[in-house]
Amino acid sequence: MRTIDWVDGAIELVDQTKLPDELVTLRITDVDTLIGAIRRLSVRGAPALGVAGALGVVLAAGDAAQIARLRAARPTAVNLAWAVDQVAALPPGKALKAALRIRDEDIAACHAMGARGADLLEGDRLRVMTVCNTGGLAAVERGTALGVVQTLHERGRLGEVLALETRPLLQGARLTTWELARMGAPHRLVTDSAGPYLLARGGIDAVLIGADRIAANGDVANKIGSYALALGAERAGVPFIVVAPESTIDEGTPSGDQIAIEDRGSEEVTTIQGVRLAPKGTEAVNPAFDVTPHDLVTAIVTERRVIRP
Amino acid sequence: MRTIDWVDGAIELVDQTKLPDELVTLRITDVDTLIGAIRRLSVRGAPALGVAGALGVVLAAGDAAQIARLRAARPTAVNLAWAVDQVAALPPGKALKAALRIRDEDIAACHAMGARGADLLEGDRLRVMTVCNTGGLAAVERGTALGVVQTLHERGRLGEVLALETRPLLQGARLTTWELARMGAPHRLVTDSAGPYLLARGGIDAVLIGADRIAANGDVANKIGSYALALGAERAGVPFIVVAPESTIDEGTPSGDQIAIEDRGSEEVTTIQGVRLAPKGTEAVNPAFDVTPHDLVTAIVTERRVIRP
Repeated sequence: MRTIDWVDGAIELVDQTKLPDELVTLRITDVDTLIGAIRRLSVRGAPALGVAGALGVVLAAGDAAQIARLRAARPTAVNLAWAVDQVAALPPGKALKAALRIRDEDIAACHAMGARGADLLEGDRLRVMTVCNTGGLAAVERGTALGVVQTLHERGRLGEVLALETRPLLQGARLTTWELARMGAPHRLVTDSAGPYLLARGGIDAVLIGADRIAANGDVANKIGSYALALGAERAGVPFIVVAPESTIDEGTPSGDQIAIEDRGSEEVTTIQGVRLAPKGTEAVNPAFDVTPHDLVTAIVTERRVIRP
Repeated sequence: MRTIDWVDGAIELVDQTKLPDELVTLRITDVDTLIGAIRRLSVRGAPALGVAGALGVVLAAGDAAQIARLRAARPTAVNLAWAVDQVAALPPGKALKAALRIRDEDIAACHAMGARGADLLEGDRLRVMTVCNTGGLAAVERGTALGVVQTLHERGRLGEVLALETRPLLQGARLTTWELARMGAPHRLVTDSAGPYLLARGGIDAVLIGADRIAANGDVANKIGSYALALGAERAGVPFIVVAPESTIDEGTPSGDQIAIEDRGSEEVTTIQGVRLAPKGTEAVNPAFDVTPHDLVTAIVTERRVIRP
């Protein structure tokens, strides 16, 4: 199964807002519909956003205003802007071929990251913790951090995955558990705030996370909750490993201080699937991402190398 | 308003599972109904559990088996067992007077903690972060950590409260926001995992939390998420202050390693108000509390003193 692909002149993508209840594929033929799908997180995950951006430029057919809006649909993940720029720099006639190459490179990169990340970890029956969804649903076929988990599982070396639920939108509870169940990997769900404490209790071999943007100095912007896990991993002496393609590394951003962090508003926090959780009128602070300083990062695994910041 | 009280021969308590939608008072005349209310968190919060335990012994009227079940209704909060033991040691004829004294002492202790905690903090327009609910709903009239917030607000020194939602049962989103709105205190809601990151972003003057049990060495068992906040506060150089009555200090427990941590099962994590969040059959790890090592605690404020572990 591919999360996003180009099929008969249109983008087809799995609507991730419907999972785990329904597996629905959207067929998208214009840029504004694609931007809507990106904003409401029907397609999400840094690598998948890159492919969506690349294929979106094909749909834009040279319309510069559409391309600019698409590029800015979500501010934190660098892959979206990167892929849009790659394809938009070419004449429209060459866009599709370039976009499909980005798709194919993502598939190959995730295979390579999975193998390199699994090689990096020692031992068997490994217990790992992760946040958000970094599986095939965040990429095209296989994922980044969850791609490492998948490779460990295929090699018979996975003990258990502890998946953080990832409030407010519960990508861990809805998507990661769904992918792990499909691959037959043992897993349990954990509230986000229990992650650091379970690391302190012991028995966890690694924290594996993805990234939305990595600054030149190794600071990592990723789903909110990553920083708390990094603090917990450091105190517990557990390796904190970031798995992301080279395209996530933004050499133009010196440090995490310069990364724009999207605030997605109160509604995502105060309600869940239409159920109100807090008193009416309650406002929320809702940063979708956080920044983990490089000194808390044990290793960054890409398709080409292992970086130790 | 009192969260729990003795009225005309029965316990009356606010059913906190119904808040913030409805303010419902339960009238309880037997121990088993009280145990049910404690287990499903209709009454919760360490000080309120102490008063519930004390008044429950009155309802037990000397029945040792009922008293033993009541004492064990929740394992982590020491106040419940402490208050049950205090009252059960007396002849049944003296139980009511002793239980009412525990209630009155709690009211006085919360006033004292509020003043002492507010005195400890310097400056005006203070921005503080808290987790779970430690307000009047967790005690009798005024709360512990949120009692400090209330005192700051009454003294005109409160800038804003950032209240963590406190998954899985959302005591922060449901109860703390409700109390802060009633007292007219500026506040915003935050997902639990955003707490440490917002501390790193700066501008927060203190983290204020309650406690369910404090070991002799100063390790603090409190709502899950407290430890992650303590790590975030340490890294950000923000004071991490525990506000709890003396009865929370358990000299019989040398360190946090000996504190039993209640696991409340998968259902609280995989569903919310009847809405399923994760694929059917998903199991969860659900520790209701965590332990913050004493080296991360800046100060423990009780009704009698300030302890610096």
